[in-house]
Amino acid sequence: MDIRAFCEPKSIAVVGASSNRKKLGWQILSNLKKGGYSGKIYPVNLKSDRILGLKAYPSLLDIDNSVDLALIVIPKKKVIEEVRKCAERKIKNIIIISAGFKESDKEGKRMEEKIIELAKQNDLNILGPNCLGLINSRKKINLTFSRFDLVGGRDSRIACLSQSGAIGSSLLDWFSDKNLKLTKFISLGNQAVLKENDFFYSLRKDKNIDLVVAYLEEISEGQEFLANVTRLSKIKPVIIVKAGRSQAGSQAALSHTGSLSGSRQATEAALERSGAIVAKDLNELFDLLELWTGLVNKSAEKIFKGAKLYIVSNAGGPSVISVDIASDNNLEVGAWPKGLKVKGLPATVHSRNPLDILGDASSERYQKALDALLSKKDIDVILAILTPQTATEINKTAEVIIKLNKKHKDKFIVPVFIGEASLKKARRKFIKSYLPIMYFPHQAIFALAKFSQYFDSLHDLRPYNLGNGRDSKMMVIEKVDENYEVIKNNYQAKLVLGQSLDYLESIKLLKKYQVPTIETKKFVDVKQLKKKNFPLVLKAVGPQLLHKTDKKGVMILIDAKQLKKHLPAMKRLAKGRDNYLVYQPYVEKHLEMIVGFRRDSNFGPLVMVGWGGIYIEAIEDVAWGLDDIDFDRAIQMIKSLKSYKVLTGLRTGKTYDIKGLAKTLVSIAKLARENVDIQELDINPLLVGEKKVIAVDIRIII
Amino acid sequence: MDIRAFCEPKSIAVVGASSNRKKLGWQILSNLKKGGYSGKIYPVNLKSDRILGLKAYPSLLDIDNSVDLALIVIPKKKVIEEVRKCAERKIKNIIIISAGFKESDKEGKRMEEKIIELAKQNDLNILGPNCLGLINSRKKINLTFSRFDLVGGRDSRIACLSQSGAIGSSLLDWFSDKNLKLTKFISLGNQAVLKENDFFYSLRKDKNIDLVVAYLEEISEGQEFLANVTRLSKIKPVIIVKAGRSQAGSQAALSHTGSLSGSRQATEAALERSGAIVAKDLNELFDLLELWTGLVNKSAEKIFKGAKLYIVSNAGGPSVISVDIASDNNLEVGAWPKGLKVKGLPATVHSRNPLDILGDASSERYQKALDALLSKKDIDVILAILTPQTATEINKTAEVIIKLNKKHKDKFIVPVFIGEASLKKARRKFIKSYLPIMYFPHQAIFALAKFSQYFDSLHDLRPYNLGNGRDSKMMVIEKVDENYEVIKNNYQAKLVLGQSLDYLESIKLLKKYQVPTIETKKFVDVKQLKKKNFPLVLKAVGPQLLHKTDKKGVMILIDAKQLKKHLPAMKRLAKGRDNYLVYQPYVEKHLEMIVGFRRDSNFGPLVMVGWGGIYIEAIEDVAWGLDDIDFDRAIQMIKSLKSYKVLTGLRTGKTYDIKGLAKTLVSIAKLARENVDIQELDINPLLVGEKKVIAVDIRIII
Repeated sequence: MDIRAFCEPKSIAVVGASSNRKKLGWQILSNLKKGGYSGKIYPVNLKSDRILGLKAYPSLLDIDNSVDLALIVIPKKKVIEEVRKCAERKIKNIIIISAGFKESDKEGKRMEEKIIELAKQNDLNILGPNCLGLINSRKKINLTFSRFDLVGGRDSRIACLSQSGAIGSSLLDWFSDKNLKLTKFISLGNQAVLKENDFFYSLRKDKNIDLVVAYLEEISEGQEFLANVTRLSKIKPVIIVKAGRSQAGSQAALSHTGSLSGSRQATEAALERSGAIVAKDLNELFDLLELWTGLVNKSAEKIFKGAKLYIVSNAGGPSVISVDIASDNNLEVGAWPKGLKVKGLPATVHSRNPLDILGDASSERYQKALDALLSKKDIDVILAILTPQTATEINKTAEVIIKLNKKHKDKFIVPVFIGEASLKKARRKFIKSYLPIMYFPHQAIFALAKFSQYFDSLHDLRPYNLGNGRDSKMMVIEKVDENYEVIKNNYQAKLVLGQSLDYLESIKLLKKYQVPTIETKKFVDVKQLKKKNFPLVLKAVGPQLLHKTDKKGVMILIDAKQLKKHLPAMKRLAKGRDNYLVYQPYVEKHLEMIVGFRRDSNFGPLVMVGWGGIYIEAIEDVAWGLDDIDFDRAIQMIKSLKSYKVLTGLRTGKTYDIKGLAKTLVSIAKLARENVDIQELDINPLLVGEKKVIAVDIRIII
Repeated sequence: MDIRAFCEPKSIAVVGASSNRKKLGWQILSNLKKGGYSGKIYPVNLKSDRILGLKAYPSLLDIDNSVDLALIVIPKKKVIEEVRKCAERKIKNIIIISAGFKESDKEGKRMEEKIIELAKQNDLNILGPNCLGLINSRKKINLTFSRFDLVGGRDSRIACLSQSGAIGSSLLDWFSDKNLKLTKFISLGNQAVLKENDFFYSLRKDKNIDLVVAYLEEISEGQEFLANVTRLSKIKPVIIVKAGRSQAGSQAALSHTGSLSGSRQATEAALERSGAIVAKDLNELFDLLELWTGLVNKSAEKIFKGAKLYIVSNAGGPSVISVDIASDNNLEVGAWPKGLKVKGLPATVHSRNPLDILGDASSERYQKALDALLSKKDIDVILAILTPQTATEINKTAEVIIKLNKKHKDKFIVPVFIGEASLKKARRKFIKSYLPIMYFPHQAIFALAKFSQYFDSLHDLRPYNLGNGRDSKMMVIEKVDENYEVIKNNYQAKLVLGQSLDYLESIKLLKKYQVPTIETKKFVDVKQLKKKNFPLVLKAVGPQLLHKTDKKGVMILIDAKQLKKHLPAMKRLAKGRDNYLVYQPYVEKHLEMIVGFRRDSNFGPLVMVGWGGIYIEAIEDVAWGLDDIDFDRAIQMIKSLKSYKVLTGLRTGKTYDIKGLAKTLVSIAKLARENVDIQELDINPLLVGEKKVIAVDIRIII
């Protein structure tokens, strides 16, 4: 949805505008006027004729001219009536500030549902209810009751979407302190109609926005979210704070794939897939903003892409700590430029990075060191660490950093001044020059690492496509080919039992997707077996036997004698309805991996690959991905596993068929996309040999 | 060493005192005078008669009275001469501020070695060289050239030891901003003579110190450090920032134990054992200090012991994030007190923790909610989260928090005001009342979790004892009993080869320490075997066969026929000098674990337990401990493993012999202590069954 018009109304009605300074209706109208909005403003108030010098109207219906947007800030009980009037007046864009709806009680919930219904019937765009409003500072529109003044200050070229009004307030307060204008701010509130997804498209198209910040408590439509955010991330960085990480829905799942997954994995896999920069909490968000807003007019891509850590410091300790932090954050420490010898430094200064210019470093020494490093082509960003020692020229050094940041227009010196009382003046200087205030190396290095990882991986970010069968609930498996009819009928019948798909049918399904599977036959009688069939694996399969190994339902048998001995027990095990015995040839000397998927209600199928066998819950070596993985991404997932060491020869010297494993993962993703009735699937083990992979056990939950 | 006297001299000579304000000699003398030191001060300067109103002496030798401590701040070339004079005058306590020694060049290193020699010969306590000096604020001694005024301010009752002068400067600057006095500050400099270990004892005894902060780049004597810090931690919390975490010395190690270890594991295991609170970097350190200094005169133990997270907030978002952070930091979120209904809150406020008192919360609403929760016996600490919204009474709420902190003398409300511009006044109020300034929930929750974990685990902290054979390099294994003589002789001969101890001798050694080992016999001839010996495991062992499995040096053979078939290949494998074949009975259905140790040059033996087998480097499921573990700690280590799930029945339903595993670990620790010539040992696999454990393979490196 393109709701650019929503953010740029040419005329605005404020329903509930008030002359009482204590009321939100006064504050909003006052903010709108003070901000310098150039369009028409229509205060609506039953009792007053004029408010804040503007002609007021008793009702929306009394306004003669057309109205682009109506903001409603009145007691909740009257809100529905005003929404009706909007519909009557064909006012499509509405902001409901009023609270007391879904978030408060049953009556509120009912009223909100009524609003949603009205919106659907009349095609209304409604922001809120229970929100802080909207700011579009370039159009001088401040439709919030925020206490922060939006006049003056540098345009940050940042947009913020927030599901929490309070976080929005804190952000606005932070921007205000930095004398920055938050370019666009959208408080989503209860998201009755307009949701986070509705704004991503217009933020992507908005040439005045360089960075998007989103604070989200829930992601409303996972796959639409991915489609939007991957596309947005491709154009500009998106920082997402996702609250509620720890509240993983922990439903007991039938299969392994399920028990290792849950909404936490889904959200993590989705956020990784989205290309967004993820901030774990508010301090991480503000560290990122601090670094970004310090860039002023420099090119973020030029500075952050391929960035390595370079440090000039008057203290060894913080430099050592910085190297530790860089290692924690996977940021490479840059090598000292070949042959560079900085002139004018004491002989005892060693030419290396981090560069320790000693405790008595003057501002001149900082100037020389920073200038020399910045004149190297490959060095675009440097941390200037200062601790307040006796000889330290704190303020002069601050000025040196400010000047060098101007001189090297396309490079970035990040000051990290560690201390407090003696640094206040220097910090004010930095704020005045829009340079970041970093109290400790951690803040700068964390943010630097995140932005550089974003720009470094931009090339590999693929847009997530809706469709491909994923969003079509109609595309059921019988469509694939005629054989599927059988399966479909089969499992329909068995839903009543274990909700698991018949074993032999499951194997057939894998074959359809070119997953190599071991030859598996139904066991009827000892007579059907010849000597060459041994050693074999006899398995009891069926809806009551989902964890075969736990129930001793898998036996390796070396000859007919052994088979006869164990057969009675196995037959007893397979007694239940729809259970039976199968046999497979015995395969050895392969590595046991697991491949599978789990269908998340929000993000669709999550595929997984990991170390298999019976102990997967203990080894916890699993990588998750979305269902649109390609071969390269499958390889990446496999490389992220601990078992990758084993796949590449740890202890055995063997190299296993990693390509075959990756292909299987891609096939399973396709199977997941195309068979929307399958909830969970796992192949465990998928035996991986040196030249091939073979699925030897399979479990499909419908 | 008790160097309390060092910190409380009754008379001080300042060698290099100067009338030139730009010289450190002036700054130090001026700081000492300004601080109000009540003892005798003797400036020493060749040219001046009086400095800063004090009589000056041309040389230390010219001072008639006794001198308790001499501080030397003169060009490095003259330092040795002055140290000699101190020795002559029997001045035992010396601080050398001058730099240019070990840290700068070879000549400096030679001079520092000379100083160390003089100190040994004359029993001198020397702090530095290349240090910032020493502060003992209760004795009004400021022997630093720090720019920070030590007059006025509340006594923090905190001592700081720092190997980095710069970090010390930043700390002093931070304390100064908070109007706090750092009670003791010791800048360690090059640690030529006095090291961090020399100060722990006196800090433990110092009743005026409640908290110790140590910034360390290297730990000079690991075991002495552990002995000191465990004892200190038992009395008061110690926060340690250990820089250089990531620079793990990564020497290729011969055995598994070695290749998984390295100095990083050693330091981590040692810091955990020490009982200290570990801060990863400076921001973590300052978050801890922020919370601690906010306690003022309240009992840290009362407040932090058993602490859970309680929150009162005017915003839902930060509360959700706080719960995430608590989960990340293993801090429990407290249950809402049974039956508690806070009076005077709107009906829409839900009685639950975190308590959301809504966006329009007044200061009165904060007051009521906080007061009601604090009046519950079990709630000692609460976060008061505030975001600046329209109706928010920022300053009044700050006052409410200050008042309640006074009213509830033994409880603690931590304000977390999120934002910036509008909060400055409230923050000034908090600083004035010595309450902490927390910008984000993360800071408060991280620090709260760390302190509460410290107080919660205090009971279990055992002092680390030197001795027990650990510190005696003379105690070699032949002393254990006469059998050891053989081993000793054996491996002495084999050091030339693989540096590994003979296989059968290794098994004997395990038996001495009551480690159950599998029956292992040297294989000579097929004739020695009977039918009952099969199935058996044939192994090629010896110095060139440390990784037997990699080289196919382990075979499971079911009968004599198989044995004969494979014997020629095995014999070829075992051809090298001191290699031979052994055989063991075949044991199945046990879990493969690993137990072993690695001797760290600094901390002594590090014992380990983990998931065994050939893939341990990939599974990475290993717990490390010091060699003084007891049975309880061994159980704790095992419980921290991922494989603990398997040991307690995951998938198999079996419970394995965890006690036997723990006992083996304790035995191996004893073996490590008593056999100082053994560098590394690993039993892999140690087979763990339901009722017993058996070592089936062993490797000992000398």
